[in-house]
Amino acid sequence: MPSLVTPSAILESALYVTDLDAAERFYGDILGLEPLGKVEGRHLFFRCGPGVLLIFNAEATRIPPAPDARLKVPPHGAVGEGHLCFAATADEIERWKAHLQAENIAVESEFEWPQGGRSIYIRDPSGNSIEFAEPRIWGL
Amino acid sequence: MPSLVTPSAILESALYVTDLDAAERFYGDILGLEPLGKVEGRHLFFRCGPGVLLIFNAEATRIPPAPDARLKVPPHGAVGEGHLCFAATADEIERWKAHLQAENIAVESEFEWPQGGRSIYIRDPSGNSIEFAEPRIWGL
Repeated sequence: MPSLVTPSAILESALYVTDLDAAERFYGDILGLEPLGKVEGRHLFFRCGPGVLLIFNAEATRIPPAPDARLKVPPHGAVGEGHLCFAATADEIERWKAHLQAENIAVESEFEWPQGGRSIYIRDPSGNSIEFAEPRIWGL
Repeated sequence: MPSLVTPSAILESALYVTDLDAAERFYGDILGLEPLGKVEGRHLFFRCGPGVLLIFNAEATRIPPAPDARLKVPPHGAVGEGHLCFAATADEIERWKAHLQAENIAVESEFEWPQGGRSIYIRDPSGNSIEFAEPRIWGL
């Protein structure tokens, strides 16, 4: 049966980290995302334009909700190096490079895609691969 | 140093799966996302509104690029149950429920948030926790 309704957008994207304090400094202070919520030892939530970035400690989110919990959020939790890409214009990518250099954050890779558009890649403190790219690399 | 530029949007969100063929049926056929690219054994890319959903086989993406590769995409790859949430209106959530039931996909959890707005949760074939939620649960 074909889908009668198609997802219009991604509302929440998740990354898992091993150090929430370092993630708070990275995503909040260095990248400048707007904090939306925080539970010590479990998560950090940030707004990013029309969406939300969820940063989780997988050790906490893997615990199933209590049987009598009112908000039964299903357990989840991944281990390893995840990936996320922020949209950026060519001019913003140049500004990110200067800002990241001033923060002593190394650009791991940088290149122009064959279809046009540039990407740069850094690591967050837990090793997640974080990219900044022009939406036109996807024809968007 | 404060951030001089703030990410305006998330361009790419990633999930890791253990069965790319099952993921292709799930995200492409059942959820109806528009395919953007595919490399057998490595990844599936889908468009979702202004963003892109990347579905990876972590065993393939953990392999570093060759020293002479022109596009040095840094390695990454996570294991376990990730999380992603699609935006949906209240009406769309009802239509998703009917569609998912017709596809024999169980709704694992469903509730109204205290701040207003509804979420439903399902699992993709690899166990990732996939949510459909109204953007107003975030005040968006």
